[in-house]
Amino acid sequence: MTNVSIIGIGATNVGEHWDTSLRHLAWYAVEEALDNAATTDIDALYVGNMLAGSLSHQDHLGALIADFSGLRGIEAVTVEAADASGGAAIRQAVLAVKSGMVQTALVVGVEKVTDQSGSTPVAALSTAMDADYEAIHGVTPAALAALVMRRYMYEYGRELVDFAGFSVNAHANGSSNPKAMFRNRLKAERFASGPVIADPVSLFDAAPLGDGAAAIIVTSSDRAMDMVPKPVQVSGSALATDRIGLHDRQNLLWLDAAESSARLALSQAGVTTEEIDVFELHDSFTIMAALSLEASGFAEAGQGWQLAQDGQIGRDGSIPISTFGGLKARGNPVGATGVFQVVEVVKQLRDEAGECQVAGAKVGMAQNLGGTGATAVTHVLRIRD
Amino acid sequence: MTNVSIIGIGATNVGEHWDTSLRHLAWYAVEEALDNAATTDIDALYVGNMLAGSLSHQDHLGALIADFSGLRGIEAVTVEAADASGGAAIRQAVLAVKSGMVQTALVVGVEKVTDQSGSTPVAALSTAMDADYEAIHGVTPAALAALVMRRYMYEYGRELVDFAGFSVNAHANGSSNPKAMFRNRLKAERFASGPVIADPVSLFDAAPLGDGAAAIIVTSSDRAMDMVPKPVQVSGSALATDRIGLHDRQNLLWLDAAESSARLALSQAGVTTEEIDVFELHDSFTIMAALSLEASGFAEAGQGWQLAQDGQIGRDGSIPISTFGGLKARGNPVGATGVFQVVEVVKQLRDEAGECQVAGAKVGMAQNLGGTGATAVTHVLRIRD
Repeated sequence: MTNVSIIGIGATNVGEHWDTSLRHLAWYAVEEALDNAATTDIDALYVGNMLAGSLSHQDHLGALIADFSGLRGIEAVTVEAADASGGAAIRQAVLAVKSGMVQTALVVGVEKVTDQSGSTPVAALSTAMDADYEAIHGVTPAALAALVMRRYMYEYGRELVDFAGFSVNAHANGSSNPKAMFRNRLKAERFASGPVIADPVSLFDAAPLGDGAAAIIVTSSDRAMDMVPKPVQVSGSALATDRIGLHDRQNLLWLDAAESSARLALSQAGVTTEEIDVFELHDSFTIMAALSLEASGFAEAGQGWQLAQDGQIGRDGSIPISTFGGLKARGNPVGATGVFQVVEVVKQLRDEAGECQVAGAKVGMAQNLGGTGATAVTHVLRIRD
Repeated sequence: MTNVSIIGIGATNVGEHWDTSLRHLAWYAVEEALDNAATTDIDALYVGNMLAGSLSHQDHLGALIADFSGLRGIEAVTVEAADASGGAAIRQAVLAVKSGMVQTALVVGVEKVTDQSGSTPVAALSTAMDADYEAIHGVTPAALAALVMRRYMYEYGRELVDFAGFSVNAHANGSSNPKAMFRNRLKAERFASGPVIADPVSLFDAAPLGDGAAAIIVTSSDRAMDMVPKPVQVSGSALATDRIGLHDRQNLLWLDAAESSARLALSQAGVTTEEIDVFELHDSFTIMAALSLEASGFAEAGQGWQLAQDGQIGRDGSIPISTFGGLKARGNPVGATGVFQVVEVVKQLRDEAGECQVAGAKVGMAQNLGGTGATAVTHVLRIRD
């Protein structure tokens, strides 16, 4: 089976790009990735996007972005799996290269939430849920996270303040990332007094939506070695799903899809969680960061928060997460987020993370969640010494 | 490289399914395909859909349909390429099986245009166009087809009545298909007096939007032979794009993406157009049928209409098209259409097409277009004697 490596990365900063169109955002990331890989020889484009149809009246992003990026004519489609669209698009690119039918594939995750000609971001985001059984009652993604967080606090006897470590870490890391949406630090003692969004989820639990685009280029590992000095191998790639409605899940506090995709990706890569030097997880809410750590095997059930409280998730800790600020501080450009995560892991493994660098990182993992964990995409990346 | 074969097919009828939800529609097609393949051992699901986010407030169909179909936990994503979403989803499934990472993949194309809680079908369909340069001016897909048709008539000196053969053939074939949306015949002499939608496109040129779902199951050809009596091999699979905006195209009357995807798929299959026994093309408008025949190599530029006028597109003709009614009479369930096309070709090759049967069909082709041809997906299928 063909091995796949990443040969180019690019990303815009995350924030409110009022003066930049959806296609321009995508192009900025694509241009940087093409430059980074020093190639324009692309066979296929996979676009990770969730909201453009609703917010910008623009579907059919494959043809649009291929055309606008000077890659007219190539194979190009959009891959959608709610907020896991970016990771899912990377997964398709990996499959395409492994198939032998596509030599070099470009992935761009793009989202422009400041386009609101068609809908509002919260209404559009709610299409990630079960429309007939959840969204119809007016519940929002934050409200679902709140239900899960409340249950976690009840089951495991935790307080709101126990989740502070996640946001404190994310903001500390984001303050070193020039492309982060929020570069302010957050004090642990302020965490519990954040304005409430959906009790107990506060502003300091929830990641901000932002515009942004990120891109990667993948090709066979054999070709990659000849093309760039530091190819990063995609050693594990897995996508799994779970019951979409929270009411259908056997255990509200266990992310089945995160567990199975992480287990499979780690097994493909032949590494254990102890060997992961950096983990970009989906901290859309602090509770999701805790559950992702638990389901992926970094902590026992009910113990994810402890890693944060003990400082183990910092750059010098046992499992650094959100090293560029995560969704919480770098910002959450929804369908682009999964691509940002992989771009960030690649920077870590190439030793190009600047002030965000985790010293000596050789093996990294990225996990992108969609719809409160109903979809999970896990990639394990490594660089050869 | 792994060869891929189709081992199961299923489809609902196309029409107004007011009493059936989006997920139920998908399930009916999935259930039939699972029964047809006599397996429930599915590793991945690729959903072809364009409009659910806009019309039904429901994205994230991968997790939703996997869950609802009793396939909880499997890899599942949505693939979107406007009205070519169904064909694009099949393309992803083919790549996935060829990659060796997915053994058996399910594709379901589903669309429910009678859900209109979020938008209207015409507004939602218009997201296939360039939002900033085309749709913003109020142009609709029918209006774009009209521009192209008017130009065709001017350049090649044709009259409206020259396109009649396409719709007459589609309705004649649809009248033999119990699952068709329209089963009435259309008289050639009535064609030119159809109510005008966007001059010169009339009601008799334009395919009706309908609800529907279709599904196929693919696996490696080696496994397929052991699983079902009549596996149908996917001998060619190609997706290409073109400039999304009509104003950007070099030649308004030539579908570059249809040409390159057809050429590539035929070359992969090692067959010529003369060897194609049945061709399910994208007759969303009669002009698109003519252009598809021309770009795919079945007629010279400006001559596609002649095949229809001469009766060559009928079941006994040199190149039978729209054998179950095509988009025009079977109905156009947008993101599901590309899967319907492949289901119909499989029925032809298996000699299971009933009254719609093309005698002795062994090699078939399906071509799904998105956004007035900005995306084209071509599959060549064959059955061994």
